[in-house]
Amino acid sequence: MNGTSHRLVQVPPGVQCFVGAEARRRRRIEETVVSVFEGWDYEEIIPPLFDYADVFATPGLAARTYSFVGRDGSLLALRPDFTSLLAKIAAGRLAHRPPPIRLYYSGEVLRYEPPKAGRQSELFQMGLEHLGGDSRAADAEILAVAGECLERLGIGGWVLALGHVGAFHGLVRALSLSETTADVLGQRMEAKDTEGVRAVLAGVSASGPAADALVRLSGLAGDRASLAEAAGALACCPDAARAVAELREVVDALTAAGLGDRLAIDLGEVRGLDYYTGLVFRVYARGLGFEMGGGGRYDTLLARFGRPMPAVGFMLGLDRVALLLERQQAPSTEDGPPAEAIANAGLGDALKQARARRAAGARVRFGGGAR
Amino acid sequence: MNGTSHRLVQVPPGVQCFVGAEARRRRRIEETVVSVFEGWDYEEIIPPLFDYADVFATPGLAARTYSFVGRDGSLLALRPDFTSLLAKIAAGRLAHRPPPIRLYYSGEVLRYEPPKAGRQSELFQMGLEHLGGDSRAADAEILAVAGECLERLGIGGWVLALGHVGAFHGLVRALSLSETTADVLGQRMEAKDTEGVRAVLAGVSASGPAADALVRLSGLAGDRASLAEAAGALACCPDAARAVAELREVVDALTAAGLGDRLAIDLGEVRGLDYYTGLVFRVYARGLGFEMGGGGRYDTLLARFGRPMPAVGFMLGLDRVALLLERQQAPSTEDGPPAEAIANAGLGDALKQARARRAAGARVRFGGGAR
Repeated sequence: MNGTSHRLVQVPPGVQCFVGAEARRRRRIEETVVSVFEGWDYEEIIPPLFDYADVFATPGLAARTYSFVGRDGSLLALRPDFTSLLAKIAAGRLAHRPPPIRLYYSGEVLRYEPPKAGRQSELFQMGLEHLGGDSRAADAEILAVAGECLERLGIGGWVLALGHVGAFHGLVRALSLSETTADVLGQRMEAKDTEGVRAVLAGVSASGPAADALVRLSGLAGDRASLAEAAGALACCPDAARAVAELREVVDALTAAGLGDRLAIDLGEVRGLDYYTGLVFRVYARGLGFEMGGGGRYDTLLARFGRPMPAVGFMLGLDRVALLLERQQAPSTEDGPPAEAIANAGLGDALKQARARRAAGARVRFGGGAR
Repeated sequence: MNGTSHRLVQVPPGVQCFVGAEARRRRRIEETVVSVFEGWDYEEIIPPLFDYADVFATPGLAARTYSFVGRDGSLLALRPDFTSLLAKIAAGRLAHRPPPIRLYYSGEVLRYEPPKAGRQSELFQMGLEHLGGDSRAADAEILAVAGECLERLGIGGWVLALGHVGAFHGLVRALSLSETTADVLGQRMEAKDTEGVRAVLAGVSASGPAADALVRLSGLAGDRASLAEAAGALACCPDAARAVAELREVVDALTAAGLGDRLAIDLGEVRGLDYYTGLVFRVYARGLGFEMGGGGRYDTLLARFGRPMPAVGFMLGLDRVALLLERQQAPSTEDGPPAEAIANAGLGDALKQARARRAAGARVRFGGGAR
């Protein structure tokens, strides 16, 4: 087999392909999530599959973007993310629209990913962005929307793990740490490596209450009670204490709305994407060793596109939700009754009968035979 | 404004972006079409957004394909078409599946298009492929499926314009015309330019019954009655006569099934894509000066991927269907009752109320205020 014909049956690494029951499951998941988004009055936005590469030129995304040259010679990129596109559209095409603006999306993004198990270049994301308006109410709202999606999808044992990057950043600022030190510290924090955090701080001779608070922050995870512990631990630093107070307000609202048991706290959470500024969260569930989605507040991104406005959003990964539902053996997104085989002798009679059965609501299989 | 910030608000030529009512209309159209496809027992296939460029290396598509270099150094291309991808998957991943195989797809394709009005680089196509099985029954079936889509979409005055490339190709073969001559002739034929056809034939000194038949073929369009005229005009050439007989069998079946009034005949139809081998058709409707979709039989494509099998398919362009429904002022895909504004004093109480109203099936707008 030569190179060409070989490639005619292979597929490139990281690309998706779904058929039959798998495709059906994905479509049903998307329908469920979209109906929840619409139920909270979010409007769909269908952004382009590619845009000028500049749009995605943030530190977290640029290196993972598939780019190519357009016919006008400009550098284009396949969207690696929806949030930047929606921010651009909100600032441009929807400039006349007063806030709050509620938008949702559902579609594919493309990313260079390190070739390891479970990583795909092509990911299907369903998410929303809440732009402008009261920030605490918006934070609480999107978490409630996320929760309703998980409920309606029938996912067992789901948890929203909440953090607030303001706790970490407040302490880093209080200690006047360099950006490099902050990056290394963030990695140790993400890894829940308390000894590592301590070592980094010792290495730059940082000490005092804010340094002690950073060490404690790396372990501040657990149920809602850890918020009270956090309030005490971070009292030394007003910015960090304010972050905890913001998070508590949101947690209290969700608890009043009956979602308290679904919340976990993880103040050591410092999400990878560089644009988060406040609340951050990940969606977990038992049976899946990684998150199904997540989101957070990004109050500075819109300014990049000329319309400064607070914003918060989240997304669910369709691939991971589908995988989880499969692992949890959720009631299958069943196919309904089997199709009726239509197999009259004459082609015209058969087609007439098939059309009549379709008009009566039946699913038909023309010409008979099993699938 | 410098180059970069300029591009941060502009969009590249030819890309799509839909918001709100427009996006809603598109989603409803897709849902309708997909429900018809599933109603005829077609299975969804979600193919990759890109593949090795070889897959799309047919004369009609290669020049219109966006390509880029993948991380393994191979040349990749964004899908310009679904049919090639589905053929590849049917021959590869579904090799074990006995025919007939019924597959549908719904998603975006990307093409370099000449920058003129109404042309987009990014097109959303909904279509199906029927692989293997009885060819006449499959031809009739997919036309009935197309018709049902148009009925359920509420499109006024739709027509399926049917042709068969075997009539043209049979006559070209009978005259032993060169490929170049055939190409020029095909262009004249598409343009319904009878004088042009006559001139091309005179230029290569082609004469006799088959040449006369080609001249007549360019005008063989109209209602079903033109099939009888065609049978007479093409009797000289067995291959061309066989094409007309095949088309008649399909037309008779559709007529028996009540779709006769929706059919037009156009034997001068020689569709652009190079892979059609039999039935070809376009979907028209009043109020739109171009087709909304179309398809045809491609009995030789599957062999390229190592699984020779007859096949027929069609697609509807979501962009054009949406445009048509807008022009026809179809009953709007309405939004249901307006969302209930939820605006209690306390955040927790408001969220609790919103969740209760959602559980009762209401659409809510959290925090109140008009959209």
